[in-house]
Amino acid sequence: MPKTSTTKSSSSRYAQRRDKLLKLLQEENIPGMLVTAEVNVSYLTGFTGDSSYLLLTKDAVIIVSDSRYTTQLEEECPGIDLYIRKVTEQLPEAIVKATGKLKLSKLAYEDSRLVVSTYQKLSAELQGVELVGKGGMIESKLRSIKDAMEIAETREAVRLAEKGLEVLRAVLTPEMTELEAAWELERTIRRFGGRGMAFPPIVGVGDRAALPHYYPQQYQIREAPLVLVDWGAETFSRYRSDITRTLFTGKPTKKMADVYRVVLEAQELAIAGIRPGARCSDIDSLARQHIAKCGYGKYFGHGLGHGIGLEIHEQPRFSPTSEDVLQPGMIVTVEPGIYLAGRGGVRIEDDILVTTEGHEVLSTTPKDFESMCLVGGA
Amino acid sequence: MPKTSTTKSSSSRYAQRRDKLLKLLQEENIPGMLVTAEVNVSYLTGFTGDSSYLLLTKDAVIIVSDSRYTTQLEEECPGIDLYIRKVTEQLPEAIVKATGKLKLSKLAYEDSRLVVSTYQKLSAELQGVELVGKGGMIESKLRSIKDAMEIAETREAVRLAEKGLEVLRAVLTPEMTELEAAWELERTIRRFGGRGMAFPPIVGVGDRAALPHYYPQQYQIREAPLVLVDWGAETFSRYRSDITRTLFTGKPTKKMADVYRVVLEAQELAIAGIRPGARCSDIDSLARQHIAKCGYGKYFGHGLGHGIGLEIHEQPRFSPTSEDVLQPGMIVTVEPGIYLAGRGGVRIEDDILVTTEGHEVLSTTPKDFESMCLVGGA
Repeated sequence: MPKTSTTKSSSSRYAQRRDKLLKLLQEENIPGMLVTAEVNVSYLTGFTGDSSYLLLTKDAVIIVSDSRYTTQLEEECPGIDLYIRKVTEQLPEAIVKATGKLKLSKLAYEDSRLVVSTYQKLSAELQGVELVGKGGMIESKLRSIKDAMEIAETREAVRLAEKGLEVLRAVLTPEMTELEAAWELERTIRRFGGRGMAFPPIVGVGDRAALPHYYPQQYQIREAPLVLVDWGAETFSRYRSDITRTLFTGKPTKKMADVYRVVLEAQELAIAGIRPGARCSDIDSLARQHIAKCGYGKYFGHGLGHGIGLEIHEQPRFSPTSEDVLQPGMIVTVEPGIYLAGRGGVRIEDDILVTTEGHEVLSTTPKDFESMCLVGGA
Repeated sequence: MPKTSTTKSSSSRYAQRRDKLLKLLQEENIPGMLVTAEVNVSYLTGFTGDSSYLLLTKDAVIIVSDSRYTTQLEEECPGIDLYIRKVTEQLPEAIVKATGKLKLSKLAYEDSRLVVSTYQKLSAELQGVELVGKGGMIESKLRSIKDAMEIAETREAVRLAEKGLEVLRAVLTPEMTELEAAWELERTIRRFGGRGMAFPPIVGVGDRAALPHYYPQQYQIREAPLVLVDWGAETFSRYRSDITRTLFTGKPTKKMADVYRVVLEAQELAIAGIRPGARCSDIDSLARQHIAKCGYGKYFGHGLGHGIGLEIHEQPRFSPTSEDVLQPGMIVTVEPGIYLAGRGGVRIEDDILVTTEGHEVLSTTPKDFESMCLVGGA
């Protein structure tokens, strides 16, 4: 990784994103926005720190921060104005002062990202400024559609994650614990140039595989014939991958082999439906109905998948109630699962780019039943 | 670490915490609370997952969650009622249904932890229930005072972090990068039984040490005579330590040696003032005034320190505007710093337990100037 450098092209990328946002706001007659979610500040400016808000209008781009970040902001965000608050000044106070100078009648804010108490302070102090809740606008209208750089970074995040599983499969022993396996994934991802894991990985042996959000513990691989691994990598640009494979480390029971078949069929049905214009609730339904038809309906209790990017759960969402519609440039996971409490679970998850023609499955690590059976190997 | 087990004593610990909270609410004539911050749900119930809210009254203890967590909740929170929402039901909807059955006229909620849009949904749907903002109550009245188990866990987190620096000092080479040094810390913390880092560690060489919240990159130790390391460990019970040392890996300049002396004096002055009843703004002032007196006032722009526990930044806060008062059982950091942009920075940070008599410095890794000079060693 190069030393700190902000190229002209990256700073114009952020300017373009801000222009898009201003255009969306203009359509609703709103002259500016207060951006409070760290990840959205980062997306719109390139700043990688925290505790900082962005104030954006046609004429002003101001980051309100504190002196811990002055140098970093100058390096990462050339051309953006800074309001560095004093140690005696709270962030909402500073925002009020910075906003006051702009003489706005209306200001959009992120109601899905701002806590009530801060909102109340701002709304009490910002006399004459109408605060308009536009939470989710940056996420759904901008961030959900990835540009070429973001797609390339996600490909890299997928490559790093897959390298992780390749090495884990190679070094897996019956004595290895869930935690050791998780750390092995992280070690490989870092060794090959990643920043680290995209999220705390799930490695669940046997009945632990039936806990969709399990945190790895000291169970050993040999304690059951099955291990579920849900992991991803994060690149230094903070883009993320998210993959799940369920490995049979011993002889699969007939039941679990059947469950595996159903989950894989459901996943393939859903992936086949991914194209621009498809409704996310319909994609969810493709998998959910197949699982239900095979008699496992009540064992699949979560949404089918989600967007990935700077965060591990982004727009769009696949669920029965989702109103999202797929567009080219979206990158989504498809991850049906069947969980039998006390017996084990199977989930299969891949990362898929929506293209103008249909889709491209970015993750290519094998998932056919035979490839998942390590007997003799582990 | 033992396999999943919930002992009687741990489940009564959570019940005691809930009783304390109910008593505080009762004093204000509020019959119950909706707890939405994950870390607070965890503190009050032992549940370690996410996406779940706690509804607490004298007669009801209900966790509202989804089917991903059913088994985990049954294991981690025996005796607590569960409301498992369907995949077609959103969390706020589920909360409304669960709350409706309780026939409450008032309900406290965490206004400092709940986003505006969710609050608006709840307040529109919860007809006849007055929502009273009590954000910060759990943090300041309960979590800021640690019990014996929490103190023991923090001691362990300190021990793990210090082991990390001991190993890093032993293996440090001029060629090692900031990132490699950060990973070395993490490797040791895990090897000795920690869950991992308490937060993304800061390892900053030379002028990077002047960026208080720097993320490690590829600078090598040999590129400057100074490296700032701000790191901590997290135990499997999720308690955290937070320590900073500034090491001289080459011959210190006269300026930086002077800065080191001033920061250390400031830190020792502040620590000496820590005792029950002391005002946090006064402790902040002890360090801040000394630094100012020595001519570096404008180079110390952040608060003097903060509580640590399940989160890395907790109550109380040391700052000029803090209204917190120290009490026995609080665990705080004291971390003055002087940052000279483009030249480097020094910060020294320790973890301190407030005792009935005064205080105990939990972190004991050396910080005298001589011990910080690795010349000949690195």
